[in-house]
Amino acid sequence: MINSTGNNEQLLIIKIGGNVIDNKDALRSFLKDFSQVKGKKILVHGGGKIATSIGEKLGIQSKYVEGRRITDNETIDLVTMVYGGLVNKRLVALLQSLNCNAIGVSGADANLLPAKKRPVKNIDFGWVGNIDPAEIDPEKWKLFLDNEMVPVVAPLTHDGAGFMLNTNADTIASVLSESLSESYDVKLIYCFEKDGVLADVNDENSVVKSLTANAYQKLKKNNQLFAGILPKIDNAFNAVNNGVGEVVIGNSSKLSSLISGSGGTKISL
Amino acid sequence: MINSTGNNEQLLIIKIGGNVIDNKDALRSFLKDFSQVKGKKILVHGGGKIATSIGEKLGIQSKYVEGRRITDNETIDLVTMVYGGLVNKRLVALLQSLNCNAIGVSGADANLLPAKKRPVKNIDFGWVGNIDPAEIDPEKWKLFLDNEMVPVVAPLTHDGAGFMLNTNADTIASVLSESLSESYDVKLIYCFEKDGVLADVNDENSVVKSLTANAYQKLKKNNQLFAGILPKIDNAFNAVNNGVGEVVIGNSSKLSSLISGSGGTKISL
Repeated sequence: MINSTGNNEQLLIIKIGGNVIDNKDALRSFLKDFSQVKGKKILVHGGGKIATSIGEKLGIQSKYVEGRRITDNETIDLVTMVYGGLVNKRLVALLQSLNCNAIGVSGADANLLPAKKRPVKNIDFGWVGNIDPAEIDPEKWKLFLDNEMVPVVAPLTHDGAGFMLNTNADTIASVLSESLSESYDVKLIYCFEKDGVLADVNDENSVVKSLTANAYQKLKKNNQLFAGILPKIDNAFNAVNNGVGEVVIGNSSKLSSLISGSGGTKISL
Repeated sequence: MINSTGNNEQLLIIKIGGNVIDNKDALRSFLKDFSQVKGKKILVHGGGKIATSIGEKLGIQSKYVEGRRITDNETIDLVTMVYGGLVNKRLVALLQSLNCNAIGVSGADANLLPAKKRPVKNIDFGWVGNIDPAEIDPEKWKLFLDNEMVPVVAPLTHDGAGFMLNTNADTIASVLSESLSESYDVKLIYCFEKDGVLADVNDENSVVKSLTANAYQKLKKNNQLFAGILPKIDNAFNAVNNGVGEVVIGNSSKLSSLISGSGGTKISL
């Protein structure tokens, strides 16, 4: 899908993760900034540690096969509850109090994010969903956006056969951005706890202003990147490669600089 | 607010409670019937025993003051999780699998059900919400209904100041029906495990076909009614008294008879 004539309306898609969600003050501050952003916008959120702590209290162990996390029957119920209920509605209620007309959705709601249970190859990941951007209907999203609603998206999809699926929030943000780039000039912002991609993982001031695919490969090869950020960068490149106009990775506490372009790491082809 | 010219489009508002939600087969059967109902419709759901059992595992005790249930901090998180997440998304995913374009909402989402924390008189009920039907904006609901979405409403509202509130599903169904009667010919159906209001609580065949306020007072005075049904009947009369065209109480396993008017108890002025 080729973007982007620049003639479409702007749409901001912002992803936040556990580091913001788990910290009450950081969350309130972020949501205040987010609520003040003008124009069309979508917030995609991850889970945070609260799912793990509630899971432990319920006696649900995190399961891993070959180091990869598995979503079994108990775990899909847990994340449906915690991500789709507790976290999602908390964000929505806070945004409403800030005069931002948030509407919390999972991928099952209005069939916004149809997905398929990940096929079993070497590992059965359980109730994990893969989304094909071509399956997303942008008109469904436009209905919310054109009526001054701000979708707040939990990291959950569904299989169309009655089952919820666990889906990575970074991936949802990337795939959704790709799909909505048909209709909008999408700017995708991945928020996390650092100011951007660091050229030197030990130097907080080594933010890479603009990261090309070549430079990324070099940094990876030299093991200069924090391992946890690799899937986020891969999702960011996936978005850029699939027609998303602009993708930035940066600090959730500095949202306005990420929107204006003065902060964060811009991902480039 | 005076209804109803009979010239508006029909809207069915159906409330189900724990007896259906807790029973997998009954739930699937009900949802199949519900999905096949033509026209505009809304499903309001209660919680079921699952909140209690998850609460017990989490060490959250149900709290009562003078026999009335209290929603403390832990309990509002529990019901937000279980009603707004687990139960709501399970219903949505199942309805989507039945080609019913369900969208799960709480009262915080899109500010659909603004409420106020119940004022403390003799008892502080905690995070419990009172809804004023005049505060509900029917246009927000119409947007979903006019775009072929079927709202699935969790028994949760919000205070507009960032906090979720626990609100009885029977009350939500009644107040929402009242508000939407401005725009639609609303038929409100309360589903439960009996075929209707029984004139003799010990005789399942003693369904009252039509219950007037006078007859209700008489039955109450003679202690002929099952105590648990009184709030449901009160909510039903509240709806009729406030302009809702038709209100029926009956068995969730006999939905089509409740819609056609051949089954259940019709509530009349």
